[in-house]
Formats: sequence, structure tokens, C-alpha cells
Amino acid sequence: MRKRDRDSGQGADAGARSAFNYGPLQNQLGYLLRRAQIAVFRDFFAVFDEFDIRPAQYSVLTLIECNPGLSQTEICKALGIQKPNFVPVLDALEARGFVRRASTPSDRRSYALFLTAAGQNFVRKLHRAAAKHERRIIERVGVHAHDCIFEVLRNLASSSDEER
Amino acid sequence: MRKRDRDSGQGADAGARSAFNYGPLQNQLGYLLRRAQIAVFRDFFAVFDEFDIRPAQYSVLTLIECNPGLSQTEICKALGIQKPNFVPVLDALEARGFVRRASTPSDRRSYALFLTAAGQNFVRKLHRAAAKHERRIIERVGVHAHDCIFEVLRNLASSSDEER
Repeated sequence: MRKRDRDSGQGADAGARSAFNYGPLQNQLGYLLRRAQIAVFRDFFAVFDEFDIRPAQYSVLTLIECNPGLSQTEICKALGIQKPNFVPVLDALEARGFVRRASTPSDRRSYALFLTAAGQNFVRKLHRAAAKHERRIIERVGVHAHDCIFEVLRNLASSSDEER
Repeated sequence: MRKRDRDSGQGADAGARSAFNYGPLQNQLGYLLRRAQIAVFRDFFAVFDEFDIRPAQYSVLTLIECNPGLSQTEICKALGIQKPNFVPVLDALEARGFVRRASTPSDRRSYALFLTAAGQNFVRKLHRAAAKHERRIIERVGVHAHDCIFEVLRNLASSSDEER
């Protein structure tokens, strides 16, 4: 993998090229995950700019599309979002007419969430933009590295799920 | 790598095991990076709890330790932090007596940053905690996967640096 990634044109080591000494940080996964996530989100924002959509909003729309009728609590659990952070995300999507809440007869405090017709059309456009974004990321790191990293990231993320 | 990771006991696929359908999200690197980063940071917070230190504060202390005399602007650039987000981080570290600012004769608007003696002692304890945290992460994903992911993450992070 090493040679292949270098050949993709993105292989220069940030630590070696940089004027800064990162000390122990350069060997810490959390630090590098954060830097990589910021870099990938930067491309996400560039691609999604025309839709005025943030990553968390896209995730929520996709979850509701793929699981119609989920409650707020279930979506928070599925995405690992804290409820206080989720409320403004949902409010914004509802204000734009993409999501509707239906009351749940069995539990008055809970709502089942669905996409509106406008929301369904909108999320289809977002999926096309997301596919474009993903192709750009694959071009950066190479298809083999892209595949390789997924399994490790899923392991990291799922070990977190187990702790909840 | 696949078999090895599964054998590490963390291999169950979150998507397959979950009651939720994640649709396209489960194949999007940005989404998985964010989930993995949150999972790793959760362990960071558990290990660093006794020090009352957040990841960004630890990064700043380490940068100043390894590059004494850097300016605020240089640290922001090195860590990819926006200056408005950096100011409260630095203020908190200064209030706790870990960082001191020295005026720069050549530029009155700029300060050179150094660790105090207390800051140097403190960051050494933090490095020991960080090493413990990293060992826990390696136990989760396996040493081979841990090595493999670093190169890909560095490529992703450095491609972002190039855009700045």
C-alpha cells in the first residue's frame, strides 16, 4: 500500500515536510483522525455548498429516509448524537419542509419522523453530491487505502457503540 | 488484515449488527471518520479526566513544548485551528500557569509562546496518559490495523494542508 499511495500524488508526509515538530502527536490516532476528518469535511462542505447542508443534517435525512418512522431517541442512538445537539438539526430540516413529525398514539411524548415528498427529492440530490464527494476522496488516497481504512474505522466506531 | 482484526474481538460490523439501516452513510468515509474520532476521543476523555484537559489543549501544549517560541498564528497553522477557537484554549492554559507569552520585539502585535516549568511537568504527565490511551486503542483495533490506518490518515490530513 505504501508505494501505491505515494504514487497517487498525496503521499508526502505532513510531518516530514512541515517546519513544525509535532512530537508525540504524530503517532497518536485521535489527533490524526481529527485532522483527517476535518480535511474530508472540508471537501464535503465544498461539494454540499449549493444545498446549504451540514454533515449531521445529511446523516439525519439519510437515516429517516432509510428508516421511516424512527423516533428522535432512536435517531440520536443510531447516529451517536446527543439529544440537545439533535433538536436544532431536526428543527432546521422541518422548517425547510424536508421532515415531518407524526405523533405516536402509544407515546404522546414521542414523534415518528418521516421525509416529506420534498425531503425525498432533496435527499436524492444529496446522495448524488455525496457520491461525487466520495469519488474525490478516493482519488486522494487511492482505492486500496480507501477500502483498507473502512474496516479499521468500523471497528473503532463499533467498539464505541458497545460502550453506550 | 480482515481476519486478524475480527480475531481481535472488535470485528463485528456495526452496520450488520445494528437494527438501523444506514444506507449510503455506511460507505462514506467522512461519516465513519467522524464516528471513529468520537469513539477515540471518548477514550481520551476517560484517560485525561483527572487532568481536566481537552484534546485541543493537549495538542497546543505539545506543540509549544516541541517548538518553543512559536507565535499564536504559527500554532493555529500547525494544528489547523481557527484563531477565534484558539484564543480561549490559550487563555485557559495561561490561567492555569502552564503557558507564558513573551512579547516579540520585532512585532508588537505578536507573542512568542513558551511552557512554564509547571507546564513542562504537566505535559510530561499528559504524554504518559496519552501513551496509555494509545495502547488501549491499539488493543481495540490490533497493531497491524493501527499501523495501516496511520498512513492513510496522514495522506488525508496532508492533502488538506496543501489546500490551505
